[in-house]
Amino acid sequence: MKIFTLLLLFWGISAAAYSQNKPSDPDMIQKLVTDILVNGTAYDNLRQLCKQVGPRLTASPGMYAAEKWGAEKMQAMKADKVWLQECAVPHWVRGQKEVFRLVRGYNMGARKEFSILSLGNSFGTGAKGFTGEVIAIDDFADLEKKKEQVKGKIVFYNYRFRQDFVEPFRAYGDAGPYRTSGPARAAQYGAAAVVVRSVGSAPDNHPHTGATRYNDSFPKIPAVAIGNEDADRLSKFLRNGGHETFYLRNTCVMLPDTIGHNIIGEIKGSEFPDEIITIGGHLDSWDPAEGAHDDGAGVVQSMEVIRVFKALGYQPKRTIRVVLFANEENGLRGGAKYAGEAKAKGEKHIMALETDAGGFTPRGFSGTMNAAQLEKFKAWKTLLEPYGIHKMEAGGGGADIGPLNRLFNTPVIGLSPDAQRYFDVHHAATDVFESVNKRELHLGAGVIAALVYLVDQYGL
Amino acid sequence: MKIFTLLLLFWGISAAAYSQNKPSDPDMIQKLVTDILVNGTAYDNLRQLCKQVGPRLTASPGMYAAEKWGAEKMQAMKADKVWLQECAVPHWVRGQKEVFRLVRGYNMGARKEFSILSLGNSFGTGAKGFTGEVIAIDDFADLEKKKEQVKGKIVFYNYRFRQDFVEPFRAYGDAGPYRTSGPARAAQYGAAAVVVRSVGSAPDNHPHTGATRYNDSFPKIPAVAIGNEDADRLSKFLRNGGHETFYLRNTCVMLPDTIGHNIIGEIKGSEFPDEIITIGGHLDSWDPAEGAHDDGAGVVQSMEVIRVFKALGYQPKRTIRVVLFANEENGLRGGAKYAGEAKAKGEKHIMALETDAGGFTPRGFSGTMNAAQLEKFKAWKTLLEPYGIHKMEAGGGGADIGPLNRLFNTPVIGLSPDAQRYFDVHHAATDVFESVNKRELHLGAGVIAALVYLVDQYGL
Repeated sequence: MKIFTLLLLFWGISAAAYSQNKPSDPDMIQKLVTDILVNGTAYDNLRQLCKQVGPRLTASPGMYAAEKWGAEKMQAMKADKVWLQECAVPHWVRGQKEVFRLVRGYNMGARKEFSILSLGNSFGTGAKGFTGEVIAIDDFADLEKKKEQVKGKIVFYNYRFRQDFVEPFRAYGDAGPYRTSGPARAAQYGAAAVVVRSVGSAPDNHPHTGATRYNDSFPKIPAVAIGNEDADRLSKFLRNGGHETFYLRNTCVMLPDTIGHNIIGEIKGSEFPDEIITIGGHLDSWDPAEGAHDDGAGVVQSMEVIRVFKALGYQPKRTIRVVLFANEENGLRGGAKYAGEAKAKGEKHIMALETDAGGFTPRGFSGTMNAAQLEKFKAWKTLLEPYGIHKMEAGGGGADIGPLNRLFNTPVIGLSPDAQRYFDVHHAATDVFESVNKRELHLGAGVIAALVYLVDQYGL
Repeated sequence: MKIFTLLLLFWGISAAAYSQNKPSDPDMIQKLVTDILVNGTAYDNLRQLCKQVGPRLTASPGMYAAEKWGAEKMQAMKADKVWLQECAVPHWVRGQKEVFRLVRGYNMGARKEFSILSLGNSFGTGAKGFTGEVIAIDDFADLEKKKEQVKGKIVFYNYRFRQDFVEPFRAYGDAGPYRTSGPARAAQYGAAAVVVRSVGSAPDNHPHTGATRYNDSFPKIPAVAIGNEDADRLSKFLRNGGHETFYLRNTCVMLPDTIGHNIIGEIKGSEFPDEIITIGGHLDSWDPAEGAHDDGAGVVQSMEVIRVFKALGYQPKRTIRVVLFANEENGLRGGAKYAGEAKAKGEKHIMALETDAGGFTPRGFSGTMNAAQLEKFKAWKTLLEPYGIHKMEAGGGGADIGPLNRLFNTPVIGLSPDAQRYFDVHHAATDVFESVNKRELHLGAGVIAALVYLVDQYGL
């Protein structure tokens, strides 16, 4: 016991001596955030990614252009090492502009075209399209009630995004299943196709795409999202009671897997090079827009950590890896590959952080980790409060880093920005550079850099 | 002591009985916020105010159109009483589009025009304009050093908005004096005119106007704001060292005072009609844009309280007054009038709340009040936390309600939304309807309604 006390004392003295040569944590965090707010390049990098590279659907030319851009960018930032980690990725192609139109019925005087987008991974109707009736379904309970009536019809899921939920991610979790599993559930009862009310919060008519998941036991029927205003219009058409006939055409196809890459930039740790801290976002995006918030913001914020560490001459003790993950949106192959290779190589991952909730004002971090780690994590809140962080809580992570947690129990942390605007633009044509604010984006990068610094200094 | 205990007991019983007939505070607050998020009209009202009424500079036709619109709107919302409270207002007219241009010097090959806007209340150069040299001044200390050199010149205050301050209002407080008192201070040393770097955070070139205050002891010299990118350009021109000559023309004039109005809508209290709770924003705006965040947002959020109380059938105990204040931007005459008339009539004002910091996600309230009131106010935080309010603190209020506090010690409270985007658009051409997000605006209205409900129920 005495020896232990003595050791603690020595440790205390040496730590105190060391601390004379380095800035205090509050000072260092202020340096990091200030440098990013004043000299940060995340915003300009995002402009390049959005305007020069553009949409980055997995396996599209945009994805390959983004991979090249990301690797070159991290080389220019003087990462110690930059490499491409190959992985197989799905190759889904949207095809021609989708068509959904009223062709026969009571409302022929009204506008007949509806604004739609195929869901990611959807099968198509083929070039000839499909003509048939539409049946409106309020929710999954309603589907069960009407299961005898859906055969051969286009099922229209008319479930609304819950504006009354204060936390938009809760509303996304609530309405999301109509997009992700609704087509498979309708196929089970013989539906010919599915039209899903967009899972989006904006008072506009942009359809919100996103991946759907088929069930291999049932037919893979065409599935599209419809803009919210057009969903209202469609709903009224159907309430008028006639057996209107509609024409739907989408020509998307799923081709055989092809090759994509995680883009990885690394700063080697000086004291514990084997302890790896991963920070990342995903490089792929949906095709109708620029993927500015989802997840261009996360990509440029993650890369900013390399820039600011280099700019301030901060040499991390542990190894910092920035990973621009492949294929988050319609396959999660990049995240699986990264964790799989970590396992194969016997790597030690002490923390992984993902930023994939939009480039908005940061308000918190949430983490999945054990109780001791959580206590340490929460204790850092006071250091981050001056930068607007008021929540450090249990529960979060990120899709791409989930496999690390499952394989290694690696603590995983997600950035939680203010989410009120996120589902206005999420997966829609409005997710463009102009919807991102420079100060909000940079403040997010700042708190990420601060948290990575703390984990680097003290472990987790 | 026993009687007191007994009384408390009876009070407890009757309160319990009463509470069976009314929703609990958490339930009532949820009803208020939910109704606003789902059925709120603030966003549509803001669209009308921005797009149908438009800019609302004090004494301009837009101001009078806005007064009419506001009164009609609150009548349509079934306020018990709506009236116009007349007050004298300044009558400043911008005149022709301002011109600032290089006319002689080393950079004649470059773009010669600079983007400027006269400051509010500024005097003009007259139609012929002014031609002279520009002297760059870093800050007020620099002005003192160079005070012998400014005579007859155009003083260019090149003080930057501090992007390193996490709280943008702090940066506004820091740079704002160059706009508000910089012209008067330069005039003291004989400057001919002043060009101020815009007090704005956006990486763009829109000049940000705003009021300046002359000192009657010195000449009232022309004063304009220059866009931030053009301020960089001007700064480079001057560093090149030559004695470049510039031409400045602004034709604004201050006319004699005219008549404006506070627009007031009231719901009479059922139990304590003499206890008045005021909620407000200001109806006037700067002229280059639509005044969407400043302060259309506050106007429509305040009116929303009437709508939601009526929609839910909530009859306040105390009198609720929504005041759309006149002339906040360049005179504060509306706020002074409202307090003055309250004093003349012997009114009892128990709380005043202002929303004039933009229609962004609400994060807190801050209030100026005595210690007992502050304790009560802070205790409500737990009720508002589910709606994103994490700060209830001392110190705030609002320009229009300041006179109430000074005259009556009325507790004054300001809504504190997330401010990262505010000074991007504040007083600039970019403060338009499209820069406001519906959910953010409505959530702000929701927490205001919730706080007003609490003050109505329990006093302060």
